[in-house]
Amino acid sequence: MRALGLSDHLIVDLYEVTMLEAYLAHEMNELASFELFVRRLPETRRFILAAGLDQALAFLESFRLTPEELADLSRVHPLGASAARRLSDLRFAGDVDAVPEGTVLFAGEPILRVTARLPEAQLVETRLLNIIHFQTLVASKAARAVLAAGGRPLVDFGLRRAHGGEAGVFAARAAYIAGFSGTSNVRAGADFGIPTFGTMAHSFIQAHDDEAAAFASFASVHGARVALLIDTYDTEAGARKVVTLAQSLAKRGLALRAVRIDSGDLGEHARRVRRILDEGGLRDVQIVASSGLDEHAIAALVAGGAPIDRFAPGTKIVTSADAPYLDCAYKLVEYAGRPRLKRAEGKQTWPGRKQVWRTRSAAGLLQCDYLAPAAEVVKGAAPLLEPVMRAGRRLSPSRPLEQIRSAALAEVSTLPEGLRSLAPGPRFSVRVSERLASK
Amino acid sequence: MRALGLSDHLIVDLYEVTMLEAYLAHEMNELASFELFVRRLPETRRFILAAGLDQALAFLESFRLTPEELADLSRVHPLGASAARRLSDLRFAGDVDAVPEGTVLFAGEPILRVTARLPEAQLVETRLLNIIHFQTLVASKAARAVLAAGGRPLVDFGLRRAHGGEAGVFAARAAYIAGFSGTSNVRAGADFGIPTFGTMAHSFIQAHDDEAAAFASFASVHGARVALLIDTYDTEAGARKVVTLAQSLAKRGLALRAVRIDSGDLGEHARRVRRILDEGGLRDVQIVASSGLDEHAIAALVAGGAPIDRFAPGTKIVTSADAPYLDCAYKLVEYAGRPRLKRAEGKQTWPGRKQVWRTRSAAGLLQCDYLAPAAEVVKGAAPLLEPVMRAGRRLSPSRPLEQIRSAALAEVSTLPEGLRSLAPGPRFSVRVSERLASK
Repeated sequence: MRALGLSDHLIVDLYEVTMLEAYLAHEMNELASFELFVRRLPETRRFILAAGLDQALAFLESFRLTPEELADLSRVHPLGASAARRLSDLRFAGDVDAVPEGTVLFAGEPILRVTARLPEAQLVETRLLNIIHFQTLVASKAARAVLAAGGRPLVDFGLRRAHGGEAGVFAARAAYIAGFSGTSNVRAGADFGIPTFGTMAHSFIQAHDDEAAAFASFASVHGARVALLIDTYDTEAGARKVVTLAQSLAKRGLALRAVRIDSGDLGEHARRVRRILDEGGLRDVQIVASSGLDEHAIAALVAGGAPIDRFAPGTKIVTSADAPYLDCAYKLVEYAGRPRLKRAEGKQTWPGRKQVWRTRSAAGLLQCDYLAPAAEVVKGAAPLLEPVMRAGRRLSPSRPLEQIRSAALAEVSTLPEGLRSLAPGPRFSVRVSERLASK
Repeated sequence: MRALGLSDHLIVDLYEVTMLEAYLAHEMNELASFELFVRRLPETRRFILAAGLDQALAFLESFRLTPEELADLSRVHPLGASAARRLSDLRFAGDVDAVPEGTVLFAGEPILRVTARLPEAQLVETRLLNIIHFQTLVASKAARAVLAAGGRPLVDFGLRRAHGGEAGVFAARAAYIAGFSGTSNVRAGADFGIPTFGTMAHSFIQAHDDEAAAFASFASVHGARVALLIDTYDTEAGARKVVTLAQSLAKRGLALRAVRIDSGDLGEHARRVRRILDEGGLRDVQIVASSGLDEHAIAALVAGGAPIDRFAPGTKIVTSADAPYLDCAYKLVEYAGRPRLKRAEGKQTWPGRKQVWRTRSAAGLLQCDYLAPAAEVVKGAAPLLEPVMRAGRRLSPSRPLEQIRSAALAEVSTLPEGLRSLAPGPRFSVRVSERLASK
């Protein structure tokens, strides 16, 4: 298996190719608009946080089947000479309108709209969904953990159980957008400039004959930079060894930064460890907690007053464990200037290109969303979708990730309190404009 | 973001690097054995199906940090000159013992064991888990769908909602190992030789002004090779248009192969559509069903006698939606010739290198598994872990995927009936040898 990236264009369902052949054969080459949106939110999501646009645009901008990819495709699905030639010439030269990454959205609201010649707009469907769906999924889950943590920092530790390498990297990015403070994932740190954090594993302790010796060995190399993992054998005994070590380190001017607890009742252990550390004069040594954390576990620890300074969730965030997919779709809404409708049961779509208009209260709180035909203007409201690509070229460079993250945090903070709650509750109602409803 | 593959070695948690620095600084370079296993199975899994070994070995065999990767790493985590030099020289020169892909396993049984110099064995932890966990997760889920389908073919349609591109490709492979018949994923078809299937999307129908014209247009290009999607507006009306089209195609010697239903009550629609097709003389036209399928939906359709010839599940299989992760671990069990133990609450491990021995009844049914120290021989039983890599080189080339798939299907068929049931039930009990328990 070769390496795989955003300029790899066989990450595609075969039916995109078979449809393309028919479009080409019948010269169906008019402009088409597709909208990507989430039909229904999982019961445990009150909102979604749009993410993945930057990678989606990189994918579109680089769209080009290489001779090697065409040869691979032909082995899987024999192509006529004409189709092969046209596929080899195919680039994405269309337009994209999208909401900025980090925007809060609700069911039925487009995350992005592609307008391009039908074959181009169709062929990019699978990978666009694949990219946007996953980052939006993780950002939406991670935003809940951030809300639960009430300001305490969160670090993503999910790479090992993310669904493949790309998932690990994308999840780190999406969680950071949602307000995480960093990741354990080196590649995500290198690619996106996300702060990285690394402590130690149980294996490090086990490889030494003695836990105290393991701590000392680590500190002699890394000084105060890391968190010592204290639960390999007995958490409180581990904490006492840390106190002893700290006393000898202090003589050399070194101060430990943190300890990590990774098993058992995290709140109870944190309380006991805090007491041991405080009594040992280590009031500044932080406690990091990991192991099976999600927004509910974090909220319970925070509510119980657990003296945990930093949370390191992993698996349950990067797999969005309680709702590991969103019911997203990429639907044709217009072709050759005519709105298009789909009626399949439970999968109906509003025809025509749409815009989302949002109103806010004087205090800036999110008030109401209107889904309207793209040509309609809703007075007193701000449109969410904006032009990001024209004729296959981005209109502006990638937004700095820090900026997206700040915007997302600000956006979530303007949600009505009910929507910021972790509990299921009434849906935020998106109003459909009369002109759209009457179509 | 650059492309990402199995010879990409920054898909790693930072702590593997910080531990490595300490190991190098203290010359902790003795042989270490780590075992990768699933601690507990999700309640809705009666067994797991091991998968991903081939990619794991490709990763290990190619292990080498390129100068570019080292530069990336140094930006994320400044390295001393000595550590940088030693990292740059580091290759994986260790041994791997593993169960063949497609082997049925239970909680606590090693999927693979790595024995290598401690720094090498440690550094590969994250990506090894990432690769083996995900394919094993999907193969274990897909095996349930295969059992539910009772011999009817299944095709993977999950790429768009898989967690990233690599997940889509790995999931297609894992599902195929578990007995799926193919995938919609072109890249998986090209990379692994998995049969690919492609029909058409609703957008194809919508782009035409008329559904019958869309069917005719598609058939004129693809003839009988594809399935017509008949539920865009009204499923039964769609079926009747297929009958009309088939009559005109028949005059040109063409016969349609299949129709696809993607919404509503799939069983009820299938019955009505079957009747329409049969009455229209299209007894040979198959019915393909998709939309939200998992093992339970498939079992219900099969039990209800739905005339569905082929199932195309997607999202719920490739995300393993009811249990989107396995509680897997990569644990140090031996270092410098001494067994290593971990006692962290709920995460205890058996010390020392282990082997799984399996006994079968005269009829070949799986009877009992014994977890024993690697040096112990259990008479009358067959060992599951076998040598696959020595000194960093594979002992044999990749096994053909067809062979793995056949072995997996055969393996699952030898499970006692209770374990082949979809319902939760008593755990298969893995016996722990006395010598291991007394350690």
